[in-house]
Amino acid sequence: MGAPMTRNLAAAGFTMRVWNRTKSKAEALSGVATVCPTAAEAITGADAVITMLENGGVVTDVLFGALGKAKAGTLFIDMSSIEPSVARDHAGVLETRGMRYLDAPVSGGEKGATDATLAIMAGGNADAFADAEPVFEAMGRATHVGIHGAGQVAKLANQVIVAITIGAVSEALLLAQEGGCDPAAVREALMGGFATSRILDLHGQRMLDRNWVPGGTSAIQLKDLDNAMAAAAEYGLKLPLTEMARAAFADLAADPALAGNDHSAYLRWLEIQNPTKRLGTGEDKLP
Amino acid sequence: MGAPMTRNLAAAGFTMRVWNRTKSKAEALSGVATVCPTAAEAITGADAVITMLENGGVVTDVLFGALGKAKAGTLFIDMSSIEPSVARDHAGVLETRGMRYLDAPVSGGEKGATDATLAIMAGGNADAFADAEPVFEAMGRATHVGIHGAGQVAKLANQVIVAITIGAVSEALLLAQEGGCDPAAVREALMGGFATSRILDLHGQRMLDRNWVPGGTSAIQLKDLDNAMAAAAEYGLKLPLTEMARAAFADLAADPALAGNDHSAYLRWLEIQNPTKRLGTGEDKLP
Repeated sequence: MGAPMTRNLAAAGFTMRVWNRTKSKAEALSGVATVCPTAAEAITGADAVITMLENGGVVTDVLFGALGKAKAGTLFIDMSSIEPSVARDHAGVLETRGMRYLDAPVSGGEKGATDATLAIMAGGNADAFADAEPVFEAMGRATHVGIHGAGQVAKLANQVIVAITIGAVSEALLLAQEGGCDPAAVREALMGGFATSRILDLHGQRMLDRNWVPGGTSAIQLKDLDNAMAAAAEYGLKLPLTEMARAAFADLAADPALAGNDHSAYLRWLEIQNPTKRLGTGEDKLP
Repeated sequence: MGAPMTRNLAAAGFTMRVWNRTKSKAEALSGVATVCPTAAEAITGADAVITMLENGGVVTDVLFGALGKAKAGTLFIDMSSIEPSVARDHAGVLETRGMRYLDAPVSGGEKGATDATLAIMAGGNADAFADAEPVFEAMGRATHVGIHGAGQVAKLANQVIVAITIGAVSEALLLAQEGGCDPAAVREALMGGFATSRILDLHGQRMLDRNWVPGGTSAIQLKDLDNAMAAAAEYGLKLPLTEMARAAFADLAADPALAGNDHSAYLRWLEIQNPTKRLGTGEDKLP
């Protein structure tokens, strides 16, 4: 995700310094940005610092390892998907040291990053959000959803909808096929009615193609649902459909043959629950 | 639904004869169609007969009560949402009597009917579908999904996705609010990412407005899910999310204060499961 986001920021006229834990990934951007040997060097003197990393622990390590070189007032924009409570911790530490912070995770995947159409969910102060708007505009469409951590909560809400809708499309396509329909024609027919969704469009097509090459893996979908359920527990909330989807993705992630499959492999979980049923006649395209 | 569909057919140049059990509904169409006192009279000599009725039993009554006047080869297009097995029975009876039949239920609601953007799911023979295409084009976008009854199965698949997605959006918006987000901003933020759907757009807005005036009622949503589960049982299929959504809508439909609410009132069911939580601060807009 970081590479196309960097290219779009550079194209919008921003002067960029980049660093990546995997050196070759940063060096691939040498045409549009200055490649730095350390995170601390990339941060030095910057007006804004954007992080796009794997999880909360990695963000903590990278951010606080490199923080010494940041100037006062630097705006840290963390676009990684991490736990809301960790995002709030990061905000607290940075503000204590005179820096500013937005949590701003995204939805839309590699394609959204490339096309600069990412849905960006931002939490933090309104003035920081206003300052970040030109940066966000180079990457997609940003919405200020609330206080520190709210961007991460919105991302969890996004992932709840994504996971459950993948489950809904799986059940609907298998039902349609068993009832005598051509499931590809059903996907086509339903686009345009109330059942229309990005998931029916993209993940529905993956299911019909039995294309399990990720995209987003089932293991990452489980991480997001675990975080959503942890947040729900913190707020004293019961979310029955989320819990059911979480349990299915836990089964998928526990199976080494399935964990790395795209999250549309929920269909494969459903087929395991229905051992005599299988969508389509194509071969599985595995990662 | 029948009225805007008739207007669009008339605008496309079709000569229409109409009948409705409620006389005033038919008479409202006197500017664009010939209003008939009986169904039999409306059918007499027609090339094609379109039915849009409440359920399978009503279609059986109206259709077979009026059938004597139909000419050989008449194409019956049933756009009602009924059980797939009943649709197949109707197909059998009509074909035995030298008539033709398509099941062609729709999704998109009153707005889709008015704008002629209905998603039409058609089951039956390919030649009958080809003959019906100009008729369908006046009302929306039709897809031939399979044999007799397959249109009704596709509609059930549609309703499975609709119901579960409404549940997903309910859980996501309540989670977002409890996590410190402005839920209206979250709906706005998520549109454009992977969580984008017609349901998030329309039913999500209804939830934020606490507008429970239907649209489609929770009682009708239950009827569709009951039919989906009956079909699944017939095919030997387990559909866990559909079953969970069905149970929630059964609770809603059993409560006289909720049965007539729009199906987005799934959120109200979720609030009952979480008695200290409530989305937003607005008053409930009741039917």
